[in-house]
Amino acid sequence: MPTLQQFFQDSVSNLQLEPITLDPPVLLQDLSTPALTIDLDVFDANLAKMQDYLTTRGMDLRCHTKMHKSPVIAKKQLANGAIGVCCATVSEAEVMLASGIEDILITSPVVTKEKVLRVISLARESTGIEIVVDHIEGADLFEREAANADLSLNVLVDLDPGMGRTGIQPGQDALNLAQHITGNCSSLRFKGLQMYIGNCMHTSGFDARCDKYTHLLQKGIETRLLLESEGINVPVFTGGGTGTYNIDGDIGELTDLQAGSYAFMDVEYRDIGGQGSERFVDFEPSLFALVTAISKPQERLITVDAGIKSLATDTAYPELRDIEGVVYHFAGDEHGIIQLNNPSKEIRLGDKLQVLAPHCDPTVNLYDFYYPYRNDVVEELWPISARGRSQ
Amino acid sequence: MPTLQQFFQDSVSNLQLEPITLDPPVLLQDLSTPALTIDLDVFDANLAKMQDYLTTRGMDLRCHTKMHKSPVIAKKQLANGAIGVCCATVSEAEVMLASGIEDILITSPVVTKEKVLRVISLARESTGIEIVVDHIEGADLFEREAANADLSLNVLVDLDPGMGRTGIQPGQDALNLAQHITGNCSSLRFKGLQMYIGNCMHTSGFDARCDKYTHLLQKGIETRLLLESEGINVPVFTGGGTGTYNIDGDIGELTDLQAGSYAFMDVEYRDIGGQGSERFVDFEPSLFALVTAISKPQERLITVDAGIKSLATDTAYPELRDIEGVVYHFAGDEHGIIQLNNPSKEIRLGDKLQVLAPHCDPTVNLYDFYYPYRNDVVEELWPISARGRSQ
Repeated sequence: MPTLQQFFQDSVSNLQLEPITLDPPVLLQDLSTPALTIDLDVFDANLAKMQDYLTTRGMDLRCHTKMHKSPVIAKKQLANGAIGVCCATVSEAEVMLASGIEDILITSPVVTKEKVLRVISLARESTGIEIVVDHIEGADLFEREAANADLSLNVLVDLDPGMGRTGIQPGQDALNLAQHITGNCSSLRFKGLQMYIGNCMHTSGFDARCDKYTHLLQKGIETRLLLESEGINVPVFTGGGTGTYNIDGDIGELTDLQAGSYAFMDVEYRDIGGQGSERFVDFEPSLFALVTAISKPQERLITVDAGIKSLATDTAYPELRDIEGVVYHFAGDEHGIIQLNNPSKEIRLGDKLQVLAPHCDPTVNLYDFYYPYRNDVVEELWPISARGRSQ
Repeated sequence: MPTLQQFFQDSVSNLQLEPITLDPPVLLQDLSTPALTIDLDVFDANLAKMQDYLTTRGMDLRCHTKMHKSPVIAKKQLANGAIGVCCATVSEAEVMLASGIEDILITSPVVTKEKVLRVISLARESTGIEIVVDHIEGADLFEREAANADLSLNVLVDLDPGMGRTGIQPGQDALNLAQHITGNCSSLRFKGLQMYIGNCMHTSGFDARCDKYTHLLQKGIETRLLLESEGINVPVFTGGGTGTYNIDGDIGELTDLQAGSYAFMDVEYRDIGGQGSERFVDFEPSLFALVTAISKPQERLITVDAGIKSLATDTAYPELRDIEGVVYHFAGDEHGIIQLNNPSKEIRLGDKLQVLAPHCDPTVNLYDFYYPYRNDVVEELWPISARGRSQ
């Protein structure tokens, strides 16, 4: 009978963190559906394109693993040039560190003692662990436990970009918190600012997005200058994402970009619009759920085996990759109904179809494995090791 | 290097199927959040109430495990008197059978050879496996593989209740399929009809739901009579769910009810209305996500650590269990923002709060474990062994 803590430590130790080679390889069409597949040619191009763009602009990539939840993919991003990873949760960070990744920023505030102690455990194993705080209480909690553990912890101050989710208000409030950290918290090492302007990532239309983002980021830039004018060094100013990568590239103020979705893309991001184009196609979709047509109860309808347990959404709907003239409706937890308006291709019972995810992050979080493929052949399984690790 | 098939067989063998006893027990308030908790007093009462009601009416319960995904819970329902379980997917059935549960109806049509062979493997281990078919092609595929395997497979004909999801049309089409099975498929054993009227489960208002359901079920009743008039025995007529349990109880035509959500309840079911009451409270909520208040970026807002990766929805919103005068807004994958209109209780940073799930099935499917508790003490973890097994 384990303690709860021991049970979860063991569960991390027992995770599959590396690719699993299949012998023999499997044809895409022979997979049991719904299955989450990655078109490797597109995926590789997306990884290279983002890294090359940022390198040219003198910005770093700190890729967000909340999107893919997979050390296999994080290591490919690091091999391509990323300087480290972001994690949204402590348990994601535990998985990434277990896989050997050491530079990890946990992007959401941690305010309970039990999670603070888990962060301290991580910091014992790697000096590359960084946290954010957005409240003096949170800073004091980390200070106390870091001092108890006799170690020094890297801290960023998280700024609220006006979305009211996390972060302290930019300006004087942020300065007070930074001064509290540098002045009163000898076990915390102030590293800089985080300002993730999530309320802009999906703003529709490039020009509107650019205007809104530039305006909001200004308060972060001013806060950085304010801190520096008070003698506080701000080596890190992190934020941004897939939807603003080229806006951030042009502004040139962030030190590193927290992008995630660019690797896979989804309907929501595609529809935000790009620079000079109606759709955002700087990165192409590489992630597809493979589904099967399982029923044809009525004329002009085909039912597939993927509902909201296999394709997560907030707003958008799934779309078929290769067939036009059809509409995908959610039909419960396990089913989708494809309305056949004017299908560009006949769909028969048993046919397997590739579906573009409405929203990649929560969709990935529903699966245990990726099936990466090239030329329709799957040679490996990539475990989604941090799936469900929202704690 | 395993074959894909071997890999997944091993993955079922390695699943945790039994409760894990914690030593020492843990206080609810000490859990790492978001955590999925079960209020055992309420849960036990729900299980007993549904079973007692159906027993009184002479109906059987064939509880649906798509909702809870847990052999631990299925076994409690069986111990209470359920005659077997329903599974939505073959991989759920694999998990239930691995745990020792033998009476399993797979409620969704299976039409690919690879999955048919997996069903045949299950049927080799248990004569209690039942499938549904809704098309002659599907029946022929099962007939061929069952004959190859030299075994006899229990089959129901699935009827479309007019929702266009799965099922053959009631009446003559259904009769043709039943006659095809009894006449041409010597390895299939025709057991009866399934008519799950999913398009009624959440119809708002008891009277409206009752009228609509009674009207739609009529076509199923007529189909049963039609088959019997043609000399086909129909021992099983299965369908219904939490939203129609007492309507089905009054009509008295179904042989068994496929209810699932009654054990946990959720916002969507609560809001459909009950008999003589605005809310459906025949069963009380027993499932709660425990979340933590992690940030307070603005006046009248508190941010918690549960977004759409921890609380799944199609339509409804999460609600706090014990605090009124607040509204829960989704704020991305990992966060919710609680708007403090006129809170009946102060919420402070680090406070842990119980949240009623908008929709229990897909919410459960996000977690690996339940934390059942009584008097705020958690003594066991219950693995959600079939989580993510949508294949």
